[in-house]
Amino acid sequence: MSLEDAAQFIRPGDNVGMSGFTGAGYPKEVPGALVRRVKEAAARGDRFAVSVWTGASTAPELDGALAAVDAIDLRMPYQSDPVSRAKINAGLLDYLDMHLSHVAQMVWEGAFGHLDVAVVEVAGVTPQGELIPSSSVGNNKTWIDMADRVILEVNSWQPAKLEGMHDIYYGTALPPHRRPIQILEVSDRIGVAYLHCPLDKIVAVVETNSPDRNTAFKDVDDVSQRIAENLLDFLAYEVQGGRLPPSLLPLQSGVGNIANAVLRGLDGGPFRPLTAYTEVIQDGMLALLKSGTMSTISATAFSLSEDGAADLHANIDQYHDRIVLRPQEISNHPEVIRRLGCLAMNGAIEADIYGNINSTHVMGSSIMNGIGGSGDFARNAYVAMFLTPSTAKDGAISSIVPMVSHVDHTEHDVHVVITEQGVADLRGLAPRRRAQRIIDNCAHPNYRAMLQDYFDRASATAPGKHTPHLIDEALSWHARYLRDGTMRSS
Amino acid sequence: MSLEDAAQFIRPGDNVGMSGFTGAGYPKEVPGALVRRVKEAAARGDRFAVSVWTGASTAPELDGALAAVDAIDLRMPYQSDPVSRAKINAGLLDYLDMHLSHVAQMVWEGAFGHLDVAVVEVAGVTPQGELIPSSSVGNNKTWIDMADRVILEVNSWQPAKLEGMHDIYYGTALPPHRRPIQILEVSDRIGVAYLHCPLDKIVAVVETNSPDRNTAFKDVDDVSQRIAENLLDFLAYEVQGGRLPPSLLPLQSGVGNIANAVLRGLDGGPFRPLTAYTEVIQDGMLALLKSGTMSTISATAFSLSEDGAADLHANIDQYHDRIVLRPQEISNHPEVIRRLGCLAMNGAIEADIYGNINSTHVMGSSIMNGIGGSGDFARNAYVAMFLTPSTAKDGAISSIVPMVSHVDHTEHDVHVVITEQGVADLRGLAPRRRAQRIIDNCAHPNYRAMLQDYFDRASATAPGKHTPHLIDEALSWHARYLRDGTMRSS
Repeated sequence: MSLEDAAQFIRPGDNVGMSGFTGAGYPKEVPGALVRRVKEAAARGDRFAVSVWTGASTAPELDGALAAVDAIDLRMPYQSDPVSRAKINAGLLDYLDMHLSHVAQMVWEGAFGHLDVAVVEVAGVTPQGELIPSSSVGNNKTWIDMADRVILEVNSWQPAKLEGMHDIYYGTALPPHRRPIQILEVSDRIGVAYLHCPLDKIVAVVETNSPDRNTAFKDVDDVSQRIAENLLDFLAYEVQGGRLPPSLLPLQSGVGNIANAVLRGLDGGPFRPLTAYTEVIQDGMLALLKSGTMSTISATAFSLSEDGAADLHANIDQYHDRIVLRPQEISNHPEVIRRLGCLAMNGAIEADIYGNINSTHVMGSSIMNGIGGSGDFARNAYVAMFLTPSTAKDGAISSIVPMVSHVDHTEHDVHVVITEQGVADLRGLAPRRRAQRIIDNCAHPNYRAMLQDYFDRASATAPGKHTPHLIDEALSWHARYLRDGTMRSS
Repeated sequence: MSLEDAAQFIRPGDNVGMSGFTGAGYPKEVPGALVRRVKEAAARGDRFAVSVWTGASTAPELDGALAAVDAIDLRMPYQSDPVSRAKINAGLLDYLDMHLSHVAQMVWEGAFGHLDVAVVEVAGVTPQGELIPSSSVGNNKTWIDMADRVILEVNSWQPAKLEGMHDIYYGTALPPHRRPIQILEVSDRIGVAYLHCPLDKIVAVVETNSPDRNTAFKDVDDVSQRIAENLLDFLAYEVQGGRLPPSLLPLQSGVGNIANAVLRGLDGGPFRPLTAYTEVIQDGMLALLKSGTMSTISATAFSLSEDGAADLHANIDQYHDRIVLRPQEISNHPEVIRRLGCLAMNGAIEADIYGNINSTHVMGSSIMNGIGGSGDFARNAYVAMFLTPSTAKDGAISSIVPMVSHVDHTEHDVHVVITEQGVADLRGLAPRRRAQRIIDNCAHPNYRAMLQDYFDRASATAPGKHTPHLIDEALSWHARYLRDGTMRSS
């Protein structure tokens, strides 16, 4: 079937479930064909828009291209595309930012209405008609199960030897029929290696040969390096104190510069054999497998640089049995995360003196990316750590503020805050003691006196002294930044 | 052993784990003896203070009495006592407000240091030396397991027939040794009926005969009644739409007026047989069991009025096999809550237009009670509902505000907001659509125009339009209340 014919199965107003998680395994061609249909409709004076549900982020040729032509009614549950972000923040695109473990169950539940069509990339089809999942699993099982019509993209760029790396769990159900998720170790397999799809649902099959998004690997900068060193010191201290086993507990790590610095710091270090129960496998995790520092990884997707992908493809035999790719409702399942006792390491945009974390919003109003799986992991982690440079925008923004302008992780969910300045272990501390520790250990010296001044005045004059705030002034740092371009007081 | 001798086993600086959850099963006499020791020490010019860890709230003779003499260094994980609250808000008492499911595991983990002594009320001791738990379980298993010394209060006021109603799970462990919690239905028992305590740990046994705190049952007021009706309408609508089964799913309910109105509204209604997987059994839940509308309740504690307690004691035979009392790390376990698919109904102090909920703080700085188990349930619920009157303080406070002054449940965790004005089902809505629905359906008419004005101006001029805020004005309603005694603009 031609690509254009395939795209005909997507109709205006449809809810469309697309594959894709952190730039891996998203459909490469159908979104472009859809964009052409949208433009044709616009030329006729018709509006053509759909709701786009995915695993997580995709790539410019999906999110960016559809957002650019205003073809998205509602986007969920995560995005990180610059065009899409600009449209959301301009008020032109509705975005539903969700815990990634919640998506599948709420779709089964019917909370978002009916799923009309699924567009799913697979790595291949077996002679028996089973679908070999691609470089991400995400919500693909749910999209295929729930959609009326399924469009497959079979991407021959994906290595055939991905076959057997996935563990698709078909034991989920709606309550009251749910059973325990019987994962006791990172490497446990509880499902099957293939996605099932009734043949009569498949309305189109498109062959592609296109690489996943290149998640470029930036060299570790000095600040990220110092954050990583602080984190590693903290872990060593916990092991020494007997609060963590010598091989730690399963790691969960976000992506990006700081995560790469952490993973590099772990490589060849004293903690081994490591495991990871996480969302995403980035370059640094592959390196840990390769060196033998890490034994096994469970995730729902890869997110690799060009070099990382080349390495995976060239050496897939040595990775094959040490990686399990699961649906995101399992990779991020609270039950499993809490049972395994993950060490959760996630980034933050800002933290406040009482330990609340903002992971998603800039100055209260604009979205950056989304909460992703950070809430699934932090809430249920053995130790929930949040990592951020102490300043942003060349020092014009302090990442430690009196009150965060948006809360994604409440004071109840945050164990440890780490910046390049140091570590604040907040466990067991009442709010005012947390404040002093965060100011002393994590704030940038340029902002420390300002924070201390706020905290002292609030402690002296606030109407309540549990979490003393000057309510007129709590968000004044953000207001000042919006007005003057800096949080520094003049 | 005399009471005063027993209290000698508590030393200045100790971490003390006390029984007690929502005014049930707390030690009745040892805290008073401790207060006398504290006063004697003060008369000598010595400071005598301890850290007090409990299940949840206790009673005036424990929390109130100890707080009144400044005998508490750190209080966790929950309190609701007026004296204690006043001390916390005066900055004289450190309070750590935690998710109730997190407490036991963090104590095992060593995150709060060593537990020196446990003071635990039991209903009796079997001839074999097994402890019959009292009217709450809370963290008692953990306190007894972890403490060096155990002081028991054996309270003969508690009915002997409590024996067999508890299910104490001894299968918990630290990772990597955790196993699935094999509760598949509300009524499942996975443990034993008794608390184990090595004899050589028991340093004192005190006999008491004292009632639990009387959790007075107030008549349902008109506003609570309308909130309950709105909730029941919502549930009926969900059942009609096929999104909930006709007997619903296990209920979790907070306590208080609104909860009582909801439970009364359910009694004899179309949804049956109901079950509850919850923290607390209040009068209204007993009534549901009695009428046959509810079949089984799992909880960690009772919280009854004098009449409710009398009814339980008189008719315990008919309740005995339909109630399971569990440790709070099991009653509130994310794994079980998510598996069972609880319908979570919790109160709120305020909600903002984007669906963030404040359950704990007044005007940003002062604590009310604490988050308790509301986060354990809401995050993992099938449907997370928050209930609040649309105004407080005779209309001087709007419970719907531009931005909450403290966040306990983020926009990612809140499905439905219900006031006496109506229901806002937020599922599937991007933030600005949530705002319009909350303003239209939930806000009090006296504040609706003000909220609309804020939202319209923010939507027009905020730097980002995902969750548009006027950062200078977002908390101005709270500032106005603190200054003028009302949120109404003059």
